[in-house]
Amino acid sequence: MKRLVILGATGSIGRSALSVVDAHPERLRVVGLAAGDNAELLAEQARLYSPRTVALATAQAADRFSSSYPTFAGTVEVGADGLVALATADEADIVLCASSGTAALEAVLAAIEAGKTIALANKEILVMAGALVTAAAARRAVAVLPVDSEHNAIHQCLHGRGAQEVRRLVLTASGGPFRHMSAAELEQVRPEAALQHPTWRMGRKITIDSATLMNKGLEVIEAHWLFGVNADRIDVMIHPQSIVHSMVELMDGSVIAQLGVTDMRLPIQYACSYPDRWDAALPRLDLVRAGRLEFDEPDHDRFPCLRLAYRALREGATCPVVLNAANEVAVAAFLDGRLGFTMIPAVIEGVMNDHRLESVSSVDVVRRVDAWARERAAALTGELELQ
Amino acid sequence: MKRLVILGATGSIGRSALSVVDAHPERLRVVGLAAGDNAELLAEQARLYSPRTVALATAQAADRFSSSYPTFAGTVEVGADGLVALATADEADIVLCASSGTAALEAVLAAIEAGKTIALANKEILVMAGALVTAAAARRAVAVLPVDSEHNAIHQCLHGRGAQEVRRLVLTASGGPFRHMSAAELEQVRPEAALQHPTWRMGRKITIDSATLMNKGLEVIEAHWLFGVNADRIDVMIHPQSIVHSMVELMDGSVIAQLGVTDMRLPIQYACSYPDRWDAALPRLDLVRAGRLEFDEPDHDRFPCLRLAYRALREGATCPVVLNAANEVAVAAFLDGRLGFTMIPAVIEGVMNDHRLESVSSVDVVRRVDAWARERAAALTGELELQ
Repeated sequence: MKRLVILGATGSIGRSALSVVDAHPERLRVVGLAAGDNAELLAEQARLYSPRTVALATAQAADRFSSSYPTFAGTVEVGADGLVALATADEADIVLCASSGTAALEAVLAAIEAGKTIALANKEILVMAGALVTAAAARRAVAVLPVDSEHNAIHQCLHGRGAQEVRRLVLTASGGPFRHMSAAELEQVRPEAALQHPTWRMGRKITIDSATLMNKGLEVIEAHWLFGVNADRIDVMIHPQSIVHSMVELMDGSVIAQLGVTDMRLPIQYACSYPDRWDAALPRLDLVRAGRLEFDEPDHDRFPCLRLAYRALREGATCPVVLNAANEVAVAAFLDGRLGFTMIPAVIEGVMNDHRLESVSSVDVVRRVDAWARERAAALTGELELQ
Repeated sequence: MKRLVILGATGSIGRSALSVVDAHPERLRVVGLAAGDNAELLAEQARLYSPRTVALATAQAADRFSSSYPTFAGTVEVGADGLVALATADEADIVLCASSGTAALEAVLAAIEAGKTIALANKEILVMAGALVTAAAARRAVAVLPVDSEHNAIHQCLHGRGAQEVRRLVLTASGGPFRHMSAAELEQVRPEAALQHPTWRMGRKITIDSATLMNKGLEVIEAHWLFGVNADRIDVMIHPQSIVHSMVELMDGSVIAQLGVTDMRLPIQYACSYPDRWDAALPRLDLVRAGRLEFDEPDHDRFPCLRLAYRALREGATCPVVLNAANEVAVAAFLDGRLGFTMIPAVIEGVMNDHRLESVSSVDVVRRVDAWARERAAALTGELELQ
C-alpha cells in the first residue's frame, strides 16, 4: 500500500489521480489533499477519500471547506506552511505535485528533504528551480518521477539506462493547431482559435503554450533537469497524432519509443506504481485504427518560443525563470485580447535581453527574478500593445 | 575485450558480424570462425582476423581451406564434432550462431553447457529445440541474446522487464510483397516475384517465408521460447515500412517500441555489447524522411502459414519441428517451380495432420521427427504436384 499526498487535487491532473486511486484501492491510499481555492470540490473529495490532512491556500478557503464538510475528522492546513506540513507528513510515501505555478515549490523541496518520492506533474518547478530540486533529490536519493506525458515516456524508454547510453532525447509535439500556418496567418490568430488543441484537452494557458510551442520549450528545460542531458542532446519532433509520446535515441542508433493512448491516468499510474507496473482498465492503443504516424521537424522561425526556450536553457542560471515568467504574462495578455499571438515571443525575448543572469542558489532568488520578469513583461506588453 | 566465435561466418549475418568487429577492434576479437562449404571465403576471413580455430562441414572443405591458406597457424576442425570443439573453446566468451538449419544445434547446446553467452541469429534452433535450449540456458544461467531484428527489438523494449509486466508482444512484419494480393492472385505467384522483398535483402528461402508470413510464424514460436510468453500473448502486426522492429505492450497499456534503420549490424552489435551499448557509425534513423508509419492486421486466411505456426506453437511438443521441416521442403519445391505458392501451406498442414506429437526430450527426437516430416512433405509435394 502506497500512501499518497496530492497537491492540486481539484485540478485536472489531481482528479485523474483520484480516479487512479479508485482503480487501485488495494494499492493506493490518499492521506493528504491540497487545493488552492476550490474548497467545495476538496470537501467532496475529502468525504470520499478520508485524508488525514487537507490544505487550502487561504483562511477564507479553509473556512469554506469547513462549512462544506463540518464533520471532517482530519486536520485543515492553510497557506504555504500548511502545504509544507502536508507534503512532509510522516504517513506520506508519494507526493504528487499537480498544482500549477510555483506555489508548491517550497513544499516539494521540503518533501524531498523528508525523503518522499515525488511525482511531478508541474512544469514551473523544474523550469524555474531545477538546480535546487535535482540537487536536493540527489542528496537525499529521492526519485523525482515525471507525470508529464513526454517525460514519463522518456522515463519508460530509459528504464534505468544512464545518460552515457543516450545519444539524444526526442520530445514529440503535436505541433498545435497552427503548425501549417504561415507567419502572416499567425499574426491574425485570435484566442478562440488558439484554444482548440488537436489531441489533448487541457487548460487555457497550456493550450496557448502548445500553440506557440513554448510548452515544448519548457519541456526541453524539464528534460534537461530530469535526465541530466544538455540542450544539444534534446530534440523536438512534430508528431501530429500524439501517439508516440516521446523517444530516446541510444548510442548505437537504436531508438526506443513509448506509445499510448492520450490519457493522463497512464503516466499518473506509472509514477505511482514505479518501479512496479499495474494493470489498468484504460482504453487500449489501437495502432491500426490510429492510422498513420507522421513526424516532422519543428519550425523555429515561425515558432520562436521554442528557440527562446533553447536559448534560456543554454544560458542557464535564472534565464529559464525569466522565460517562464515573461511567457505567463504575455500569454495572459494574449488571452485578454491585449497582445497579438506573434507578439508573445517578442515580449519574452525583450525581457530575456534585459535580464542579468544570477545563479539559482535559493528559492528567494527564483521568487525575486520571477517578480522582476513579470513586472518587466507587463511593461513591455503595455508598450507593444500601443503599437 | 570480448572474444567471439562465429558459426556461419561466410553467410550474410556472419559477414555483418565481422564488420561489427571491424568497427570495435578494441572491444571484440574473433577467436573462432566456422563455415559450411565456402572454404575460400573462410580462408580470406582467417587471414584478416587470425582466429585460433576454424571449422568446416567436411574434410573436403577443410582441405580446400588449407590449400587457400597453407600457412594458417591455428587449428582446422571438421564436421559436427569440430563445430562443438569450436563453440566450447576455452578462449570464447560469445558464440554467435548465424548458420542456418540445425547443423549447429549440438554446438549451441554444448556452448551453453560450457557457459558461453549465445547470440542467436538462427531461427530453426529455437523453433525445433526451444525446450532443450531454454532448459539448458536456465540451468547454466547463460544468456541467449536474439539477433533477429524483431526479437532483438523486443529484448531492447523489455530491458529486463519480466513476463509479469507484459500484456503482449507485438512482432512487426513488412507483410511481404503480396500483402495486397487477393487469394486468386496468390495462386498465380511465381518464384521470381516472391523473391522481391520490399525492405530487407535476404536469402531465397527466408524471402519466400516472408512472402507467405511463415517467417513471422516461426518468429512467434521463437518469441515464445526467448521471452517465456505464450501464443495468446504474442501478436503480429503488418508494418510495411519496417522501421518499428517490434513492440511490447505492458500491463498498464503502455507500449514500448524499438525503431531503427534496417541494418543487421545494429542487432548483432547489441548482442555483442550487451549489457553495455556501444557507439555505432551506422546510418541514423530519419523519421521525417521515412515518411509515415502504418500498421495493419495480418490476414490469416490469405496467409495460412501464420495460422499454422500459431497452431504448431499451441500444440507444442514436436509440432513446430514438423512445421519447420515441411515448410522447408515445400518452399524448395516452390522455388524449383514444382509447387504452387498457395500449396505451400497445404503441404505443411497435411504433414502436421499426419504427425503424432512427441515430447522434445532430446536432440535425437528432433532429428528423427525432422527427417520424418521432410519425407512426408516430399511425398505430399509429389502428390500435390500431380494435381
